[in-house]
Amino acid sequence: MSLNEFDVIEKYFAGLLPDRDDVIRGIGDDAAVLSGSADCNLIVSTDSLVSTVHFFPDADPYDVGYKSLAVNLSDMAAMAATPRWITLSLSLSGVELNHSWLSGFSQGLAELADRYSLSLVGGDLCRGPLAITLQIIGECPKGREINRYGARPGDSIYLSGELGAAACALAMLKSGHKDIRPGFSERLLRPSPRIELGIALRGIASSMIDVSDGLLADLGHVIKSSRAGALLNIDDIPVDGHLTSDCAPDEKWQYVLAGGDDYELCFTVPEDNRRKLENINQPVFRIGKITAGKGIQCKNNDGAVYIPTGAGYSHF
Amino acid sequence: MSLNEFDVIEKYFAGLLPDRDDVIRGIGDDAAVLSGSADCNLIVSTDSLVSTVHFFPDADPYDVGYKSLAVNLSDMAAMAATPRWITLSLSLSGVELNHSWLSGFSQGLAELADRYSLSLVGGDLCRGPLAITLQIIGECPKGREINRYGARPGDSIYLSGELGAAACALAMLKSGHKDIRPGFSERLLRPSPRIELGIALRGIASSMIDVSDGLLADLGHVIKSSRAGALLNIDDIPVDGHLTSDCAPDEKWQYVLAGGDDYELCFTVPEDNRRKLENINQPVFRIGKITAGKGIQCKNNDGAVYIPTGAGYSHF
Repeated sequence: MSLNEFDVIEKYFAGLLPDRDDVIRGIGDDAAVLSGSADCNLIVSTDSLVSTVHFFPDADPYDVGYKSLAVNLSDMAAMAATPRWITLSLSLSGVELNHSWLSGFSQGLAELADRYSLSLVGGDLCRGPLAITLQIIGECPKGREINRYGARPGDSIYLSGELGAAACALAMLKSGHKDIRPGFSERLLRPSPRIELGIALRGIASSMIDVSDGLLADLGHVIKSSRAGALLNIDDIPVDGHLTSDCAPDEKWQYVLAGGDDYELCFTVPEDNRRKLENINQPVFRIGKITAGKGIQCKNNDGAVYIPTGAGYSHF
Repeated sequence: MSLNEFDVIEKYFAGLLPDRDDVIRGIGDDAAVLSGSADCNLIVSTDSLVSTVHFFPDADPYDVGYKSLAVNLSDMAAMAATPRWITLSLSLSGVELNHSWLSGFSQGLAELADRYSLSLVGGDLCRGPLAITLQIIGECPKGREINRYGARPGDSIYLSGELGAAACALAMLKSGHKDIRPGFSERLLRPSPRIELGIALRGIASSMIDVSDGLLADLGHVIKSSRAGALLNIDDIPVDGHLTSDCAPDEKWQYVLAGGDDYELCFTVPEDNRRKLENINQPVFRIGKITAGKGIQCKNNDGAVYIPTGAGYSHF
């Protein structure tokens, strides 16, 4: 099959092409022309997924497309941004250059793009080892972004949802298991970016990050940027009951504290804003507080100190 | 050598990090926060360079860094945009993960970034086959962008400089030659994005594109978008004298008309604006005119029709 770049875009990505009023010129010129909102800052992020590094070579293309966008949307959520526009660089080997792969990939991408009314405004297709680089541009009213560095001693630390299932699914897939719990593989392959929660936390959270590399690693970035410490009650971290029943305790805590890929939000809220947090009516879980110290201390309900065995994941 | 993402950024890309006032938050958070100009549109483009597809695996890393940015800047030039911010996704195999490669690459990138006061505001490093995806965001006063679709019959067609040398250098490198004319390899490896000219053409040019895939292919995009035709006098196309002396005529015209990688601007100017064009004091070359027909017709000084043998280059 012979496909050129324009054929591929028109055939598989047409549904993602601009229908936003703020896209003056989309695909089809040397660059896109976009009209930003005067009262907003731009929020810009990029993330790559490379075959065999970030996903299995035989991964379902729908999942690859979905996750390429999900991880970028999660970065938008963590800044309290409203996502607007995406560009896509797709490097395809001969193996993926067929209808089945391209339609699966584009449909996975479209599921999330449609949900958030995103426009694909630019990109680049080339032959090469399978890799996807997606860039996302969002907006946030000026000064309402939520950074990593704003946590202060006394702030409460919250999570938006359960941790550990994605890391457990990944470990099982890596060791050759095929019978992964559907709920677990869903967490790994199709994480839910917490866009609505991120936006709702404008003016409430003092700092925020998404848990992509593991709670301890990511909360570690927050306290380092904020020059503070953290005290966690690990028994307050929401965990899928199956993780507790299926895994030995140390394995479970490894997944929960150091496993990546959950893409929940971890954020801090000053005491004065906790009432506002209750009013947003979204599930959040208080797991600890920011301290004046350094580093992260983990305790359990009995007050005993827990020493974690891992410290997060780096793809590099 | 063990290097993590933060080490690499701090050690090699620190000089590219924000010193622009419009960067509210650069690298070090989930996403960058940028303050756009209220009276400007955003101009957004992305381009990937993949080892063995876009450059030789043993290419000088300085050249790879330089060209990664040059091709993106050329897209900005072609829209009449002022470039502002870049993000970089770098996939590195073990071979490039060393001081020599990283410092060469980052210096090549920095040469152009410094020239245009660009800030590196985000990115992603991962292990994988060598590939570089660079995204660039520029600005242009609203409505002053120059698109591909504005050419009208009677407009003159211009080029910003000589064509063909880059394609000749590439052909020689591919056939194993090592003694390439320095001027030719410079054109291939370190093309000059025509940013200043692009900006100067705001309000003057009716359409514009950069010549990356070959003049006939790229001018073909312009006339297709503009629903017009073009008549070229090939003897008016500026060509390095060495190309004429070194190559057989058909080979020369193949490089000039269908060779890519020159990154000169091709633009059209209505009769009423030709006086303004003279006042910008930059070298430009009139090579033909837009017609009411379809397709591109090539003639020479004698008025004879020339039938080109190739139609441009696709990396895909």
